[in-house]
Amino acid sequence: MDPLVLLPFEEYTRRIDSIRAQLAREKADATLVTDNANTYYITGRVFTGYIYIPAEGLPLFFVRRPIGLEGDGVVYIHKPEQMAESIGALNIPARIAMELDVTPYSMVTRLSSIFPEAEIINASAMLRRCRAVKTAYEVERISESGKRQGAVYRRVPRLYRPGMTDIELQIEIERALRLDGCLGQFRISGDSMELFMGNILVGDNADNPTPYDFAMGGAGLDPSIPAGADGTLIRPGNSIMVDANGNFTGYMTDMTRTFRLGNLPEEAIAAHQCSIDICAHLSEIAVPGIEAKTLYTEAEHMVAERGLTAYFMGHHQKAGFIGHGVGIEINEAPVIAPRSRDILAAGNVLALEPKFVIPHVGAVGIENTYLVTASGLKCLTPDVPEQIIEFI
Amino acid sequence: MDPLVLLPFEEYTRRIDSIRAQLAREKADATLVTDNANTYYITGRVFTGYIYIPAEGLPLFFVRRPIGLEGDGVVYIHKPEQMAESIGALNIPARIAMELDVTPYSMVTRLSSIFPEAEIINASAMLRRCRAVKTAYEVERISESGKRQGAVYRRVPRLYRPGMTDIELQIEIERALRLDGCLGQFRISGDSMELFMGNILVGDNADNPTPYDFAMGGAGLDPSIPAGADGTLIRPGNSIMVDANGNFTGYMTDMTRTFRLGNLPEEAIAAHQCSIDICAHLSEIAVPGIEAKTLYTEAEHMVAERGLTAYFMGHHQKAGFIGHGVGIEINEAPVIAPRSRDILAAGNVLALEPKFVIPHVGAVGIENTYLVTASGLKCLTPDVPEQIIEFI
Repeated sequence: MDPLVLLPFEEYTRRIDSIRAQLAREKADATLVTDNANTYYITGRVFTGYIYIPAEGLPLFFVRRPIGLEGDGVVYIHKPEQMAESIGALNIPARIAMELDVTPYSMVTRLSSIFPEAEIINASAMLRRCRAVKTAYEVERISESGKRQGAVYRRVPRLYRPGMTDIELQIEIERALRLDGCLGQFRISGDSMELFMGNILVGDNADNPTPYDFAMGGAGLDPSIPAGADGTLIRPGNSIMVDANGNFTGYMTDMTRTFRLGNLPEEAIAAHQCSIDICAHLSEIAVPGIEAKTLYTEAEHMVAERGLTAYFMGHHQKAGFIGHGVGIEINEAPVIAPRSRDILAAGNVLALEPKFVIPHVGAVGIENTYLVTASGLKCLTPDVPEQIIEFI
Repeated sequence: MDPLVLLPFEEYTRRIDSIRAQLAREKADATLVTDNANTYYITGRVFTGYIYIPAEGLPLFFVRRPIGLEGDGVVYIHKPEQMAESIGALNIPARIAMELDVTPYSMVTRLSSIFPEAEIINASAMLRRCRAVKTAYEVERISESGKRQGAVYRRVPRLYRPGMTDIELQIEIERALRLDGCLGQFRISGDSMELFMGNILVGDNADNPTPYDFAMGGAGLDPSIPAGADGTLIRPGNSIMVDANGNFTGYMTDMTRTFRLGNLPEEAIAAHQCSIDICAHLSEIAVPGIEAKTLYTEAEHMVAERGLTAYFMGHHQKAGFIGHGVGIEINEAPVIAPRSRDILAAGNVLALEPKFVIPHVGAVGIENTYLVTASGLKCLTPDVPEQIIEFI
């Protein structure tokens, strides 16, 4: 038998306490969790089933699969209705929080029928707030991903061979990431954004708009998954933007570096330097208590001063943010966007990606993942040069 | 500007008509679609937005991203509430179908508020029924995936090098698939099953239970994505089951082949032959009108006759099905399971995967993707030998 909770006891307790603080704030009696990312947050593993966390008393773990898990509160079930008996033995909740932003309507309706008298409120924002403030244990895992992702990025110039297309280079980067332990899975909250192992953007393909809420574009290989590399030949004068999967530990980092074949025009180099300078400036001012939208405004201001607004965060189609929380999923809180209501807290981990699309050249700029500390941002993806790196 | 609908006009019309037949059957006045897989089914592309299909009159395509799409009924919006005006100009629906099995609760609630007087019914099963019967155009795309997936499978023995682990072999297979045009994205309906580029199972790792509703197991590399290869060294006497991503065209095939290093015991060879024989037998009897559960029962019977029940569809943890529809997603209708209520129809495309887990050896068996025709099943993954293939 295998213990269900894989986290150290103190770490597990800290996370449960964090969720209970949210329950108290929302005057909820319990939460019922089923989303894979939240299940992993609470237990350190993914299983199929439900986690019932009452405001007081022991959590219950209702497991459908896999077989063989054990521990306090573990109850095997075949269907969710079987939870009623175990929960009924506790206090029946009057107000219960479910993950309404991610759980399908039919499933919420079904789960609600287990608590016919209860008021259902939304747990999604609560869990998002918990997960936005990383523990030291989580920062360690993110930092480990950052080290390993960086080791692969440093090898990218050696993966390039003359005559390659963007997708051919991407495939070699995918292989290098996987051989170094990248888990492959790229977790995105919600079902509407799909991305496979990240994006490699070359030349004008960076200016092709995508349907997804990602910072950069790319036509992709097929209209069924229209983003990223599209078979563009890498030519002298192109920038090559590498923004690939950094999930090595269940907690991912998000990192982008820009490479070049031959020389790039002044404007592209200036834009890339602007990206570096924005990250450096925001690293100083992003302290706990600052509004996320202030970071966006500061970046926007630096871009305007250097006359680069037309290319900022895309050219034809622009992204509406320059950064986002990252951890178990790639789109966590806080969001660094003009109308974000998020306020930075110590322990937030966020990716900053002020990028530019320069016509006929491609995308330029950097992205790092940072920890918010009292003295500003600490880079968790530090070991790769930020300047544009030449392919020789 | 780019036409939004990428399908040939006749194909598009056929699909819209198929959806309208379902709307008529359920007495719905309209459906509002937003899921990526259904969006791709209706238009031949993925975009972010909503498709409004009234029982009569032109469909409306409400697009949030990408920019630059055009055609009859295309309306750009920033938020879903803006759909009210365009739809209001048509007949206001009294009964509208939404994708309740996949759309999050919060989003359905928000969309419902656009139609405050309307009754909301479930479009998920309707669209599932439409998509279960493939058009000739769709069969062509699936067949193309099958050819290309088969070409990579034939090269698998050449990708093996002595001393490899399961994950090292998997990474070479992933690379070969990608170089041959595999799109990478592995579409699964719903958010709860996660799989990256398929499964390579070696030895006793095949007997490790997973949380997911897949046919076979594997511990995986990390508890955040606990399925598939786990770093097992490939040793003489092991079977190597390869069940990898067949999405080359937006429509995928599902195919499994078993390889071996050295000799396998009689029992493993007998079980593998049983899998081949089940597929051959079901290929003859699976004609339009047959109940899906009959196929399961027939397979179960053949397995029992040969004394292989203990190993069928897993050993410690068993899967509850031997086949499933496949197309845009890996888990479509019909489902070949003991309590399935599906009845086969001409044009269904389904994967049959009667598999076995033999202790100390690994997983054996085959999987093919088939088209249901009046004369039985036509194999769409035909060009790879079904016998166990030796690694030399």
